[in-house]
Amino acid sequence: MRHPKPPPFKFDVTGRFKPLFEPLAIGPVTIRNRFYQVPHCNGMNRQHPSSMARMRGIKAEGGWGAVCTEQCDIHYSSCHPRELRLWDERDLPTLILAVEQIHAGGALAGVELAHNGAYVHNLETRAIPIAPSGTPTRGNAPVHARAMDLADIRDLRRWHRTAAINAKHAGFDIVYVYAGHDMTLPAHFLSRRHNQRIDSYGGSLENRVRLLRELLDDAKDAVGDRCAVALRFSVDELIGSDGLTCEGEGRDVVEILADVPDLWDVNVGDFANDGQTARFSEEGFQENYVKFVKSVTGRPVVGVGRYTSPDRMLSLVTSGTLDLIGAARPSIADPFLPFKIASGQFDDIRECIGCNVCVASDKLGVPLRCTQNPTMGEEWRRGWHPERIAGKVSEDRILVIGAGPAGLEAATWLGRRGYETVIVDQEPVFGGRAVRESTLPGLSTYKRVADWRLQRLRLDPNVTLLAGNRVTADVVLDADFSLVAVATGATWRADGIGRTNARPIPGLDTIQVFTPDDIMAGRLPQGRVVIFDDDHGHMGGVIAELLVATGCLVTFVTPESLVSAWTVNTAEQPRIQRRLLERCIDVHVSTKLVGLGAGIVELACCFTGRRRQVPSDAVLLATSQIPRDELFHDLVKRIAEMPTGKSDIAPRIVRIGDCLAPGSIAAAVFAGHLFARTLGEGLQDRPSFRRENVVPDWDQPFPSAIEEPVFPGEYTCQT
Amino acid sequence: MRHPKPPPFKFDVTGRFKPLFEPLAIGPVTIRNRFYQVPHCNGMNRQHPSSMARMRGIKAEGGWGAVCTEQCDIHYSSCHPRELRLWDERDLPTLILAVEQIHAGGALAGVELAHNGAYVHNLETRAIPIAPSGTPTRGNAPVHARAMDLADIRDLRRWHRTAAINAKHAGFDIVYVYAGHDMTLPAHFLSRRHNQRIDSYGGSLENRVRLLRELLDDAKDAVGDRCAVALRFSVDELIGSDGLTCEGEGRDVVEILADVPDLWDVNVGDFANDGQTARFSEEGFQENYVKFVKSVTGRPVVGVGRYTSPDRMLSLVTSGTLDLIGAARPSIADPFLPFKIASGQFDDIRECIGCNVCVASDKLGVPLRCTQNPTMGEEWRRGWHPERIAGKVSEDRILVIGAGPAGLEAATWLGRRGYETVIVDQEPVFGGRAVRESTLPGLSTYKRVADWRLQRLRLDPNVTLLAGNRVTADVVLDADFSLVAVATGATWRADGIGRTNARPIPGLDTIQVFTPDDIMAGRLPQGRVVIFDDDHGHMGGVIAELLVATGCLVTFVTPESLVSAWTVNTAEQPRIQRRLLERCIDVHVSTKLVGLGAGIVELACCFTGRRRQVPSDAVLLATSQIPRDELFHDLVKRIAEMPTGKSDIAPRIVRIGDCLAPGSIAAAVFAGHLFARTLGEGLQDRPSFRRENVVPDWDQPFPSAIEEPVFPGEYTCQT
Repeated sequence: MRHPKPPPFKFDVTGRFKPLFEPLAIGPVTIRNRFYQVPHCNGMNRQHPSSMARMRGIKAEGGWGAVCTEQCDIHYSSCHPRELRLWDERDLPTLILAVEQIHAGGALAGVELAHNGAYVHNLETRAIPIAPSGTPTRGNAPVHARAMDLADIRDLRRWHRTAAINAKHAGFDIVYVYAGHDMTLPAHFLSRRHNQRIDSYGGSLENRVRLLRELLDDAKDAVGDRCAVALRFSVDELIGSDGLTCEGEGRDVVEILADVPDLWDVNVGDFANDGQTARFSEEGFQENYVKFVKSVTGRPVVGVGRYTSPDRMLSLVTSGTLDLIGAARPSIADPFLPFKIASGQFDDIRECIGCNVCVASDKLGVPLRCTQNPTMGEEWRRGWHPERIAGKVSEDRILVIGAGPAGLEAATWLGRRGYETVIVDQEPVFGGRAVRESTLPGLSTYKRVADWRLQRLRLDPNVTLLAGNRVTADVVLDADFSLVAVATGATWRADGIGRTNARPIPGLDTIQVFTPDDIMAGRLPQGRVVIFDDDHGHMGGVIAELLVATGCLVTFVTPESLVSAWTVNTAEQPRIQRRLLERCIDVHVSTKLVGLGAGIVELACCFTGRRRQVPSDAVLLATSQIPRDELFHDLVKRIAEMPTGKSDIAPRIVRIGDCLAPGSIAAAVFAGHLFARTLGEGLQDRPSFRRENVVPDWDQPFPSAIEEPVFPGEYTCQT
Repeated sequence: MRHPKPPPFKFDVTGRFKPLFEPLAIGPVTIRNRFYQVPHCNGMNRQHPSSMARMRGIKAEGGWGAVCTEQCDIHYSSCHPRELRLWDERDLPTLILAVEQIHAGGALAGVELAHNGAYVHNLETRAIPIAPSGTPTRGNAPVHARAMDLADIRDLRRWHRTAAINAKHAGFDIVYVYAGHDMTLPAHFLSRRHNQRIDSYGGSLENRVRLLRELLDDAKDAVGDRCAVALRFSVDELIGSDGLTCEGEGRDVVEILADVPDLWDVNVGDFANDGQTARFSEEGFQENYVKFVKSVTGRPVVGVGRYTSPDRMLSLVTSGTLDLIGAARPSIADPFLPFKIASGQFDDIRECIGCNVCVASDKLGVPLRCTQNPTMGEEWRRGWHPERIAGKVSEDRILVIGAGPAGLEAATWLGRRGYETVIVDQEPVFGGRAVRESTLPGLSTYKRVADWRLQRLRLDPNVTLLAGNRVTADVVLDADFSLVAVATGATWRADGIGRTNARPIPGLDTIQVFTPDDIMAGRLPQGRVVIFDDDHGHMGGVIAELLVATGCLVTFVTPESLVSAWTVNTAEQPRIQRRLLERCIDVHVSTKLVGLGAGIVELACCFTGRRRQVPSDAVLLATSQIPRDELFHDLVKRIAEMPTGKSDIAPRIVRIGDCLAPGSIAAAVFAGHLFARTLGEGLQDRPSFRRENVVPDWDQPFPSAIEEPVFPGEYTCQT
């Protein structure tokens, strides 16, 4: 079960997409095509090194011309809680593993060197953070960064240069200077907000750009013979005159440094702007900001914009807007996107839905999860490949009941494995919640979850699709299946039980009560509506938008201190809260719903218990869900009651997806995939995946004193 | 520089504290005295295994009779983001390392086995969480736990039993069943809020306690021959009739299980109650809740309450309230507390100040930091010992300017090392901010930071203390010092600059402006006061309390969505917000202060920018701090201007503590200690401490199939 390493895919594209497959020189290296996976976080990093490396390697296998790492801290005074490190040679094995995997797939390997300055607190290393000017660190930790003096700037340059040399030693082809997302020291030096220096590194833009130019020059001098030196830069911070703008200093920086870097990797900052979800932006939303860059520099330019349309990509390159199609999320949703364009399998592209469950994974420090690609994060750990799967190992005939995300995913891969599979749903349209939720404001891309699976299923001779069929236990047990997966989804509770209320809310029968299921079924309230969001995902917020749009007077209530608090992790939260504050009658945070009456909703402060009443005609409860598992339990019961001879030949019954435990669409797709791979693996006694631990190294010597050489090899300090 | 391993300290105590040093049988093992370090989180865990093990070992060396680990997950369906694991043999090396260190110090080693059920989301392993009844998981992740069926309960028992056996193999003497803090499956089964089962594990208390009893019986059966089986249990959840109470079901559980466990480790739940800070509770605050336990069981009982007073401890044992003095935080602040009582060094006990910077470290996943004990977390990494330090390595004469936390700590250990040291402060009273802040409501224990250091300094012949002396650069350079540490602290900004405002707030000259420094100096506003808290630590909140108490009408404004948002990490936040909501005129969260006028403060919503005006007579700005570093810069400048011959013999000048970068008192104490250890180590090119990485293990085989033996050795499934 070791990972096979196929030789790199050869691109011999002759059709109209040929321009996307032209090689391009980037400094001293050449990229084989125009598909460029820009650096992106992934929640694996140094904590799950083989998982990270294999994930990168599979993208190379899928045809990306360049594959970059996430940010890589160059020094222990930049102590990001996650991400990669290159503090000394102890960190090299993880980086080398990634390079090997990327090269095995035929791609260039890039590394995003970074020093986060006052963006981090260094709580682990206890090193005082450094910044152009003294400042509290980002966030709310009780930490200030100190202002760097000229010796500190020399130190920083030496650390960056040393890291570049070690990155070259590790085998990287592209070495980044990272000045983007308001997250790194060169970005902070550029910023008038962060840089109040009065020396040659502060004041005029020429002075503020000095450090960035020095880092680029240092890197080119140190590794430019063999590595391209890329600059990742946010041309517009989208905060108006307080920040860089693409018509002001953002453009000026590009003009000043025009041909200094070998590659311009450009975007809009900060990350919440660069990484906008489909709810708040369209494909290509960054084009108007970055399109000037090509006109200013003679170097190749890569930009991003959640591109999944081959025609759009082609037009970007042929029009001279970008040289390289950058991607983070689309390469996560479909690591084989370039391969599929090359081979004309356009319909088979798994399009990113722009939901940012990936971003949330990273924020929470766990391996990247993807709604569209359930193999993400499992490539090494479970040996899963996004396009390959083992053939069937039994003669099971399999029934999948329910064609939501879990059921569709299961049937897609069961069919691919060669299992004779029937998938049935009581609704006339397949897709389940992916289709239902796609009707809500801003969530139309969710439909792609069904679309991709259905286009595969419709071509699969092993799978029979039965829409509009409600099955009962009788029907199931009368049919000739050996394995049944019940994927009948979940129902939103209408009693208010959830994280805050352990018991039904009093007075449910005194007022009109709605749930998200009602809304998606077209049953809408009118007049004054109180939405009680005890779920904290996107659901409460999008329903608020919808009801306001239909003319309701909406009051939004949540026990969290923020609206849609979970979406802090998807980098959407401030946009959502702004929207609701602007559109709702009122927003009550840190507030719970404790009672209902005729025309009245009773609220209580989560801290003091103080109560207040809000007049309302209806209440919408988005609290929690209960599995729709009656059929499952019926089947289990019926089989248990069978005589031994008959029960021996009864089908195995398994629940998957929301029917087992309600969760995200990503979790449902994962559950369907896991079922297709394992035919119903439950909890094992030992972990059913590979893992890597911190290995105790008790006897390691204390670090050498400052006088000794920093790194072995060619490097000596030249600053 | 390897850690010396002294033989275990022998306790031959004959004085009145003898009862604290009587051995006691706990099931099949015997503890040497009555000092018991209960399980506590520490932010090192499996990510920093040698750091964790050495920290535990030093407590054993310091005389604790038992030293326990933090919680240890028994299965990958309980995937705590931090903490220890015992999922399979891959996790044993870290646990064995801890046992070895604890045993080397002569203490019993305990392990807190845990399954967190629906308290965790399992985002890393993607295993569906399990619970007595279906429920959303704790927090706000889009995850529901599924209800366990009887097979799941059998599985759980097998996992727990297997983990107990492996813990015994690892060498542990005490194996826990953890049913406390509303955080684990046996606690969830006990709870009417979480358990809605209708089978033999739900309904009556007898049914709800069934799983807990089974886990205890299983553990005793599996390892009771050599290990004590302890039960950690929260006797009162402090939420009234919705939870366990020490007069109701909490007591009933103790009565039902009275002599089943070998040890009762009792507290109040949840953790925010068990781990209350000094701001909200006194030493011994749990006594009234747990004192009944001794009357119900014949087994030894350990309880906690931030005990640092030897007399209080003695009285607990002699009165029969507790058999063992439990401690987490006091053992962090002074790992040698038992040793110091045994040897009569009562004044030398470093008393825990109850600030919960330790808890915050764990919440943020970084090695435990302690305000009183800066060696915490550095025992293995930097080879620091809380009581031992190398003698001087030079003939430096050292001047420490400023007797706040950093200066006092530096002088304490410089003197101990044998350096001739002078410490000077312009104030007549030594202690700096530790003393100033201790005058604020709820912070009186902060004075302990100065007290402990001063009692040591006053006995140290190497150190000269000069209070009430304001030194200038002239004075310093005329004196005969070779090394000068400037520890002159920091000043709260009066211009509003901080995380939210990059520039001074307009209108500062139109209204009375106060800062925390004013308040601590006794300069108080009157009438209506707006407090703008852009610091987010405790400062804004305690000043609000103080001003309300002096009769001011306080409006509290913070850009965070919570009052004193950082204190989420110290487990204090809900208490603080409740207090402010009850005492202030108004509390505006997610709001920034954008302008000041005569009798007016202008606020703006952080999301929409919507403005509103609040009438006010004064404003208090708790935003950020600037180092008081004029003397430092003056010294550096004067030395730079000296002729070569003179500058060669000029003293080295170093900044430490808030004077370099304002932060917590813990950070200042750490900075002082680092200076005393290194005489001014700045940032090194490579990490100046040892560290342990995840080591790539690319070629490891995939896990064996379910049919194979779970663990090698004696265990076979018996459930």
